[in-house]
Amino acid sequence: MAIVLFTDFGSHDLYVGQVMAVLAGAAPGVPVIDLLHDAPAFDVESGAHLLAALAPQFPEGSVFLAVVDPGVGTGRAAVVVEADGRHYVGPDNGLLSVIAGRSRACRTWNIAWRPESLAPSFHGRDLFAPVAATLAAGGFPADRLIPADGLRTRLGTGDLPRVIYVDHYGNAMTGIRAAALARDATMKVNGTPLPFARVFGEAPPGRAFWHENSVGLVEISVNRGSAAQALGLAVGQRVELA
Amino acid sequence: MAIVLFTDFGSHDLYVGQVMAVLAGAAPGVPVIDLLHDAPAFDVESGAHLLAALAPQFPEGSVFLAVVDPGVGTGRAAVVVEADGRHYVGPDNGLLSVIAGRSRACRTWNIAWRPESLAPSFHGRDLFAPVAATLAAGGFPADRLIPADGLRTRLGTGDLPRVIYVDHYGNAMTGIRAAALARDATMKVNGTPLPFARVFGEAPPGRAFWHENSVGLVEISVNRGSAAQALGLAVGQRVELA
Amino acid sequence: MAIVLFTDFGSHDLYVGQVMAVLAGAAPGVPVIDLLHDAPAFDVESGAHLLAALAPQFPEGSVFLAVVDPGVGTGRAAVVVEADGRHYVGPDNGLLSVIAGRSRACRTWNIAWRPESLAPSFHGRDLFAPVAATLAAGGFPADRLIPADGLRTRLGTGDLPRVIYVDHYGNAMTGIRAAALARDATMKVNGTPLPFARVFGEAPPGRAFWHENSVGLVEISVNRGSAAQALGLAVGQRVELA
Repeated sequence: MAIVLFTDFGSHDLYVGQVMAVLAGAAPGVPVIDLLHDAPAFDVESGAHLLAALAPQFPEGSVFLAVVDPGVGTGRAAVVVEADGRHYVGPDNGLLSVIAGRSRACRTWNIAWRPESLAPSFHGRDLFAPVAATLAAGGFPADRLIPADGLRTRLGTGDLPRVIYVDHYGNAMTGIRAAALARDATMKVNGTPLPFARVFGEAPPGRAFWHENSVGLVEISVNRGSAAQALGLAVGQRVELA
Repeated sequence: MAIVLFTDFGSHDLYVGQVMAVLAGAAPGVPVIDLLHDAPAFDVESGAHLLAALAPQFPEGSVFLAVVDPGVGTGRAAVVVEADGRHYVGPDNGLLSVIAGRSRACRTWNIAWRPESLAPSFHGRDLFAPVAATLAAGGFPADRLIPADGLRTRLGTGDLPRVIYVDHYGNAMTGIRAAALARDATMKVNGTPLPFARVFGEAPPGRAFWHENSVGLVEISVNRGSAAQALGLAVGQRVELA
Repeated sequence: MAIVLFTDFGSHDLYVGQVMAVLAGAAPGVPVIDLLHDAPAFDVESGAHLLAALAPQFPEGSVFLAVVDPGVGTGRAAVVVEADGRHYVGPDNGLLSVIAGRSRACRTWNIAWRPESLAPSFHGRDLFAPVAATLAAGGFPADRLIPADGLRTRLGTGDLPRVIYVDHYGNAMTGIRAAALARDATMKVNGTPLPFARVFGEAPPGRAFWHENSVGLVEISVNRGSAAQALGLAVGQRVELA
């Protein structure tokens, strides 16, 4: 069992290390995997679709600490979701609702417990990390959890036809699942039509195309170049079938 | 016991991995926590105040490898400091002097040992890491250390009324400890008055405010926005009580 | 034995975590060291020289997962190289050819195996990581490997007189090994002559100089400043003896 971190804390900032310290103390020896710490900041919907695309490749029993939480310290609930054998610990603000809504089997608990010392701006460290550590160490913190009927905040579980992540190469990942699309489909973004290519090396250098990326999403790319730069793409940009 | 890394080596550069390799060899199985690798480059004073704010949340017995060291390879001494039950290994250039000066109990040693192979620009890897590994593995490298009267280079231990760190959200952390401040105090930065808010979600979107951040410092923020951009803040910017 | 990661996947993107998950599953308990994830993107030649400079400090038995792979998903072969007691797993596109060509003893295998699920754009996760994990766990995946005569794609093994990496301080690392150079040699870059200095602190602030960096390469630096900014340097910039 491993703890998988998915946050917008920033991989180069000083937040992840503080979470790591809590996990090392509360779940010593449990592997911790930094899946993503640069989820688009404050952007719960993009995070929800990214997480839903990424999570299925992790084994059952994995515990996700998932935090994109612009409302930290206000009234939003803190929850544990069990979906298809994996646990997710995080805010009830929509972030976990796509993975929950698409799952075959799902249970939800509200985290009733509050630690003695709780920084209003860092529930990731003080509230979510201790709960995730207990779960990952094989325990179930029954005294800290109250069964709930489901999540209060739910986003749509269908595809999200816009850019949800731009990587450092300049590839623009969308919230559209590629499996259902025909390979001769043409996408369109910012007025530019995008043909399909199976792989970068099969697209002419400099020409933008779409492909099914390694987590099953439609991604807009340029062979040995930056699609984001070439087409002026950023998170939020709408994408459509041409 | 864990080794905690606090450096300006850059989280995306090739320096941290080389330090990790030394630690994995010399202290196998000891957890290593990347607390911060993007401390403001060359800026010993900011680093000293950040470290002093962060360290107390780590358990006694933790060993900090702390390196912001623009004078590496010149005459500055290399030291081990034991303060309030935690060890710190790094340069005697002021970086460890705030945590030492604020501690209840403190001892200092000079590192007399020099490794066979010592790159003049990378004492973090060749000199500090082996010493930190020995300490973290539970040993005390007595043959490498000489008790000292204290640090040679000492910065002031009071609050530092300027920005010492800007995170990727655009929050500007200062060297002012918030505990002693009244909640109705107004701060001022760059001519802009900043009211207090307990938490991001309680501040009107777009309006700058100050709050006590998760490590006890006064921090300037904008709800769902970047205070650094809104107010033109960078490390070094003076902050004052209005 | 440790697995050492050397890639252009981007330290803040979502690729490294997916590789980590595979390694944690297939080689539990084996330490994984993030040596570099921001090797210049798509730039096989710079990566090959960086890797050759970095690898010798790692102990024999180390397994490198080395991926800078713009041709992923096309016809290029996948290989395992054993050179001077260390294993390297990656594409046969030149990336491993400098370390192989400079080694005293070297063997090569083609990876004949293909996993059931192989994302065309992410062989690092699906193909290279499982093979590296098997090697690092002490096994030899004989059924997956076919002995080869050597690498198909070979770059020159001599010095590369250009900038191959710029770090976050602004130091510009070249592909020239410093050991053979006289200390009174003067380098020249972009029309600017660069005197030698042993260490940053011995160079006048603001003045560019060259030094032997911590991995034995000629590096262009400015004391407490950015050589990249001062001299307009980027990866690819030619450097010459004056």
